[in-house]
Amino acid sequence: MSESYHIIGNYLSPYVRKVLVVLEMKGLPYSIDPIAPFVGNERFGELSPLRRIPVLIEGERVLNDSSVICQYLEERHPTPALYPADLWQRAQARWLEEYADSYLGEVAIWGLFFQKGVKRILFGEPPDEEVMRRAREQQLPAALDYLEPRLPASGFLFGAAGIADISLGCFFRNAAFVRYPIDAARWPGTAAWLERVLALPAFRKLAVLEDATLRVPLPEQRAVLAGLGAPVSPQTLGTAAPRRGPMRRD
Amino acid sequence: MSESYHIIGNYLSPYVRKVLVVLEMKGLPYSIDPIAPFVGNERFGELSPLRRIPVLIEGERVLNDSSVICQYLEERHPTPALYPADLWQRAQARWLEEYADSYLGEVAIWGLFFQKGVKRILFGEPPDEEVMRRAREQQLPAALDYLEPRLPASGFLFGAAGIADISLGCFFRNAAFVRYPIDAARWPGTAAWLERVLALPAFRKLAVLEDATLRVPLPEQRAVLAGLGAPVSPQTLGTAAPRRGPMRRD
Repeated sequence: MSESYHIIGNYLSPYVRKVLVVLEMKGLPYSIDPIAPFVGNERFGELSPLRRIPVLIEGERVLNDSSVICQYLEERHPTPALYPADLWQRAQARWLEEYADSYLGEVAIWGLFFQKGVKRILFGEPPDEEVMRRAREQQLPAALDYLEPRLPASGFLFGAAGIADISLGCFFRNAAFVRYPIDAARWPGTAAWLERVLALPAFRKLAVLEDATLRVPLPEQRAVLAGLGAPVSPQTLGTAAPRRGPMRRD
Repeated sequence: MSESYHIIGNYLSPYVRKVLVVLEMKGLPYSIDPIAPFVGNERFGELSPLRRIPVLIEGERVLNDSSVICQYLEERHPTPALYPADLWQRAQARWLEEYADSYLGEVAIWGLFFQKGVKRILFGEPPDEEVMRRAREQQLPAALDYLEPRLPASGFLFGAAGIADISLGCFFRNAAFVRYPIDAARWPGTAAWLERVLALPAFRKLAVLEDATLRVPLPEQRAVLAGLGAPVSPQTLGTAAPRRGPMRRD
């Protein structure tokens, strides 16, 4: 077993959060280089061919893609299990993870979080109001309509909290960053389930660091995060100009 | 074990092909409803919330996403194994599958196949020449540069042919549909590896059906495919007008 994992990522990315929650829930030691999203030098491009975060580093070895990383951590550290034991339930959990990564990623991240936060701060551009309107009024409601009958009235999706709850919860956390609360009158089951997910110790612990990242200007973030107990590593990747390119979802 | 799987898909989709190759290599019985891509009625939307193909149906149960489906088939029918036994290799194989699904999907399907084939035939629109040029001259070469040092000089990626070879091969097959051969002078290892992959019996068997699908007008496809021995089911989904929307990759 490795001594420790190293994560390249940022506390505001839902894909990074997914991996961090898995590491936390499995009690695995790790360090993190909290690079700014959409920023990365040549070395980053070598570690992450699609220029996405998170990247997991284990000694000399490098692994990409949040879903691939979580599945690897599960197989390497099977206890506590975060994937259902039943094969069909496990497949359904993976499908919900993919639904979150892909559809909620498109809507909550590219439709809302990127428009309202990243685009203005990193690129000095105004949000695309039509994209945001569609995300808020059509696409997120469609996702909530899909999820409402599928989420459990109590507890979590497949018994104990696991990868499907984690994945979906990570994206709704980003929706909350841009003040999109789930309307509990319209989707009561989803709103209550999300409260249970975000109350998990791993989510609560990370929320402190996410809030600090949101609050503190980029140059001061490392010091502030370290002061809050985040396992921040020395800066290894350098920085570069913000870039758009294919650094989209992971 | 189920009697038989049912696939909703189309022989020209690389995501569908991936699942079909896995079914073939594991010797599992299946039927297929070869719906036209980008077409599907309300019932299809219920089976596939993101309106993507393939969909796997097992009795009353429905599963989405080609990667999730392949992983499920592997766990339910472990022999012959199509995923590496070694955990790190297995993670790398899944990463290459994700790289294919995501980057090669964007480039080979949306940059080339959709532009040159689907867009004209289904939507009566001309291809976007700039999108095609970028795919041919920049994006596919970048992928080939990435893959060349990673592909084996002989045999397959992790021993016997498996999910990484299958996934990557499926997308290069679509690149071949629009006459993008791999330049063997520039990427000799990749060109030779692809020849080995496409020579696998499952790929050869499906190629006959893919060629027929390309050649035969839509209304005659089912009959022609059935005549060629394809396990075509009765049409269950009906058809609808072609639609763009979120039916992108799966």
